[in-house]
Amino acid sequence: MAKEKDFVKEITPQSEDFSRWYIDVITKADLMDYAPVRGCIVFKPDGYELWEACQRELDRRFKETGHRNAYFPLLIPESFFQKEKEHVEGFNPELPWVTQVGDDNLEERLAVRPTSETIFGYMYSQWIQSYRDLPLLINQWANVVRWEKRTLPFLRTSEFLWQEGHTAHATAQEAEEETKRMLEVYTDFCETELAIPVIQGQKTPSEKFPGAVATYSLEAMMKDGRALQAATSHYLGDNFARSFDIQFLDKDNERKFAHTTSWGMTTRIIGALIMVHGDDRGLQLPPRIAPTQVIVIPIGPAKTRERVLTAADAIVHTLKVAGVRVKMDASEDNSPGWKFNEYEMRGIPIRLEIGPRDLDASQVVLVRRDTGAKEATPIENVAQHVQDLLTTIQNSMYETALAFQEGRSQKVESVEALHHVVREEKGFALAGWCGDDICESQIKNETGATSRNIPFSPPATMDTCVVCNQPAKHTVWFARAY
Amino acid sequence: MAKEKDFVKEITPQSEDFSRWYIDVITKADLMDYAPVRGCIVFKPDGYELWEACQRELDRRFKETGHRNAYFPLLIPESFFQKEKEHVEGFNPELPWVTQVGDDNLEERLAVRPTSETIFGYMYSQWIQSYRDLPLLINQWANVVRWEKRTLPFLRTSEFLWQEGHTAHATAQEAEEETKRMLEVYTDFCETELAIPVIQGQKTPSEKFPGAVATYSLEAMMKDGRALQAATSHYLGDNFARSFDIQFLDKDNERKFAHTTSWGMTTRIIGALIMVHGDDRGLQLPPRIAPTQVIVIPIGPAKTRERVLTAADAIVHTLKVAGVRVKMDASEDNSPGWKFNEYEMRGIPIRLEIGPRDLDASQVVLVRRDTGAKEATPIENVAQHVQDLLTTIQNSMYETALAFQEGRSQKVESVEALHHVVREEKGFALAGWCGDDICESQIKNETGATSRNIPFSPPATMDTCVVCNQPAKHTVWFARAY
Repeated sequence: MAKEKDFVKEITPQSEDFSRWYIDVITKADLMDYAPVRGCIVFKPDGYELWEACQRELDRRFKETGHRNAYFPLLIPESFFQKEKEHVEGFNPELPWVTQVGDDNLEERLAVRPTSETIFGYMYSQWIQSYRDLPLLINQWANVVRWEKRTLPFLRTSEFLWQEGHTAHATAQEAEEETKRMLEVYTDFCETELAIPVIQGQKTPSEKFPGAVATYSLEAMMKDGRALQAATSHYLGDNFARSFDIQFLDKDNERKFAHTTSWGMTTRIIGALIMVHGDDRGLQLPPRIAPTQVIVIPIGPAKTRERVLTAADAIVHTLKVAGVRVKMDASEDNSPGWKFNEYEMRGIPIRLEIGPRDLDASQVVLVRRDTGAKEATPIENVAQHVQDLLTTIQNSMYETALAFQEGRSQKVESVEALHHVVREEKGFALAGWCGDDICESQIKNETGATSRNIPFSPPATMDTCVVCNQPAKHTVWFARAY
Repeated sequence: MAKEKDFVKEITPQSEDFSRWYIDVITKADLMDYAPVRGCIVFKPDGYELWEACQRELDRRFKETGHRNAYFPLLIPESFFQKEKEHVEGFNPELPWVTQVGDDNLEERLAVRPTSETIFGYMYSQWIQSYRDLPLLINQWANVVRWEKRTLPFLRTSEFLWQEGHTAHATAQEAEEETKRMLEVYTDFCETELAIPVIQGQKTPSEKFPGAVATYSLEAMMKDGRALQAATSHYLGDNFARSFDIQFLDKDNERKFAHTTSWGMTTRIIGALIMVHGDDRGLQLPPRIAPTQVIVIPIGPAKTRERVLTAADAIVHTLKVAGVRVKMDASEDNSPGWKFNEYEMRGIPIRLEIGPRDLDASQVVLVRRDTGAKEATPIENVAQHVQDLLTTIQNSMYETALAFQEGRSQKVESVEALHHVVREEKGFALAGWCGDDICESQIKNETGATSRNIPFSPPATMDTCVVCNQPAKHTVWFARAY
C-alpha cells in the first residue's frame, strides 16, 4: 500500500487541534481510508487487525460466560420494525431501505439492519416454548448500517461492525443480572485488554435505547476530555417479548412472557483506543491488544550487518517461541532513525535495538513507546524481560489513563461550573439531577454536554439538581461526547 | 433452544429422498432455521460453529500465504457496476437496491454487494501507484446478497457468508500464479480439514465469473452423485484494472495496468460437509473440523454414578489438556441409548462410554461414528489413543469419500451414456468437448448436467466431442449440480 515513504507527513499536535490530530494519526498509521459511499470507511489491514484483536478477546469472554454465536439476516421486513413503537421511531430516520431487486419492486420494503432486536425477537418466539429453552444466550458478529448525519472515521460511520448479544430469560431478575454481567465483561475487556478505564452507569431515560427499560453504558474519557460511550447493555424487560410474542410454558404450567436483553460493542472502540492512548508522535497500543508487541531493528554499519542479523533472527525466534508477537524490520531502504519514528507512530509498545556494540556486550536495548525509557538487557534473559516489560507497560498505560480521567473529573454545583469544566477545563462534570428531562436538556443547550450516565459508584453524591436546585434524584456524569 | 426432546423425529433415508434427508438432518441437528426473509436462513449456533471452524482454518492459511484481512463497504454505488459490462450483466438480475433512507430518496441507487470486485477496484486505484505497492494481497470476511430464484439452506441462500480475496499484481504471470495458489489453498483445506476430495479444473467460458479471463474451481461429489462447486478462484487479467484505472509506475518507469485476481469460499461448504459425509443416522463430521470431537457418556446404575462421574471428569480433563475438543453429557433426563442416537445424529466422531465395569477393568469404550467400530482402551493411555483414533477416522473418511467419488465417475462417449451416468447411475461423466457453446448447452438441455470443469489432471483424455464427434479441444467433467 502507498506508504508515502518519500516524505514524512507531520501529525498535527493534539494541543493545536485534536480532531486534526486524530485524522492525521489514523491516516498516517494506514488504519483506514474514506470510501466512495457516504459516511463509510474502508478498514485497511492495520485498522482491521485491531478489530480482529478485539474480536478475539471479546469472543473468548462471551463464550466463557455461556454465549454462542449465530448469524441472522441482514435485511429486515418493514413490518417487523412497526411492532415496537419506540424502536421504530428511534431508528426510522437512519434506515436504508431495499425497495427493488434487479428491475422489480418489492412488495414490502426491507431495512438494512441498524440492530437486530426485531429479527431475533421473531425467531426467539419460534424457538422458545418451555422454561427448558431458557436462558437463550446468543451473540452475533455483524455489520450494521445507520445513516448518521455527521460521521467520523471509526467513531460514527454509516456502516460499522459490531457484535450484538441477544438473550432471553425466564425472569426479570435473570435478565437484569445478564445485563449487568455483560457490562462487567465489557468493563474487564476495556480495562484489562485496552487499558482504558471506564465508568459504569445507567443512561438517563432520554439517552436509553429505543425500546429498552434500562440502558447501562461504559463511558471513557478521550485525551481531549470528551466522553466516548464504549459499550451498552440493555435490559429490555418484556417489551420485545410482548411485541414478538416470546412466550414460554413455565415450571408452574403458566404461559409467561420472556425477559430479554441486548448488548453491543462496535468498531468505534478502535477510535477510543487511539484517543485514550495516542500522543503527538502517533498511536500508542497497549501490549495485550497490540497486533505487534515488539519491533526488532538491527543497526550498525554494513560490515557488521550479517553478524547482527544472525543474532536478531535468533532473538525474534526466541521471542516468538515465548508467545511474544514480534516483527523485525531489516530493510535497507530506510535508516534506523526513520524506522524509530515510523514504529513509534504505529504505536508498537517496545522497540528492540540491536547493534554490533550490543552484541559485544551480549545485550540488546529495549525502548518503551509509552515513556521513551531505554534500557539495556542481557540477551540471555530477553524473552522473560520483554514479557515483564510488556506487563509493566500495560499496567502503566492503564494507570496513566486513569490518572488523566480522574484529574479531569470534577463535582459541580452550578450550570456555569459545569460549562467551565466541560468547555474550558475539558473534562467530565459530576452533578446532581432532579430527574426532569427539562433540566437535562437545558444543560445540553447551554453547555453542549450530555448526560453520560448515572454511575454505579460515583466519587461523591450530589444533593441538589445543578439546574433547578430541587433535591437531586441522581448523581450524573455530564460531558461533551463523541 | 427447542430440542424437541419429547419425540424422535425420523430422518428420511438417503435412498428414499436425498433432498428430504438433507433437510431432515440440518433441521434435526439444529443447524439452521428458515428466516422470515425470502430465501434467507438463520445460522443457528450449531451451524454457525461449523462456519467458525472453517473460518479458523481458512484464515490461518490465508495469512500463511501473505494475505491480510480488511473490510470494505456493504453498499456499492450503481455507477460502479456499470464500469465492467460483463460484470453488471451477470449480476444485475440478482441485485437488491437501496433507494431510500428514512423517508428520503437517494440520488444514486446503492447495491447491497453481491461480490466486491468493483469497490476493491476503486480503492486499489487509489492505493496502487508504484510497483512497490504490489502485490497487494487482501481478504475480506463478509456477508453478500444475491437474490436467487431457487434457494436451499446453506447451498444457495439470498444472503450468505463468505470470504473474498482480492489481489493485484505487477504481471499477468504473478496474478495467474496467485489464482492457482489459492486454488491449492482451498484444495488443501477441503481435503485435509473437511476430508472432502475435490477435482481441480478450469470453468468453461459459459460458466466463468462475469468479468474474469479464467475461472478455476473445485468440484466435489455429494452422496447423491451431484456436484457442488466448493470454491472458485478467478484470474481477472487487466479487465477490472482497466475499468477502475488501477495503474502503477513500474521499475522501467512505464505506467502499466495491474493484473488482478479474486477468490472465494462460502457457507455453502457447510452443505457440502453434510452431503459428502452424512448418512441415514445423521451428520458425520471429520475430526479436524468437528467443534466437538469426543462426547463422553457416563453409564451404569445410580449407585455407581458418583464413582463413574469422578472418573469421567478426570478423563475429560485429560483429553482437554491434550488438546482434544471434548464434551460430556451427564444429564439424567435422557437414557444412554437416547444419547447414543443423539450424538451420532450430530456427527461427533468418537463416543467415549464409561461405566462401572469399565472402571473395574481400568478402561473406557470408544465408538467410532464413521464405522460404528467399538473398542476398549486402557484409561492410562486414553489421550494418545483418542488422538490416534481421530487421525484414523479423518483419513478413513477421506478415503471413503474418494472411493465413492471415483466409483461414481465414468468416461462417456455419447450423450446417451452421459445421460445414463448422471441420471441413472448418479455420478460424474468425463467427456470430450469441441469447445463450442452449442454442444455444451445441448448436453444441459438433454441431460440436466452442466460442465463442472476442465480438470487439470483428468483420469483420461477424450479425443472427440461427446455431442458432435468433432475433435475434442478439452476433456470435461459433466454432472448435475447444486
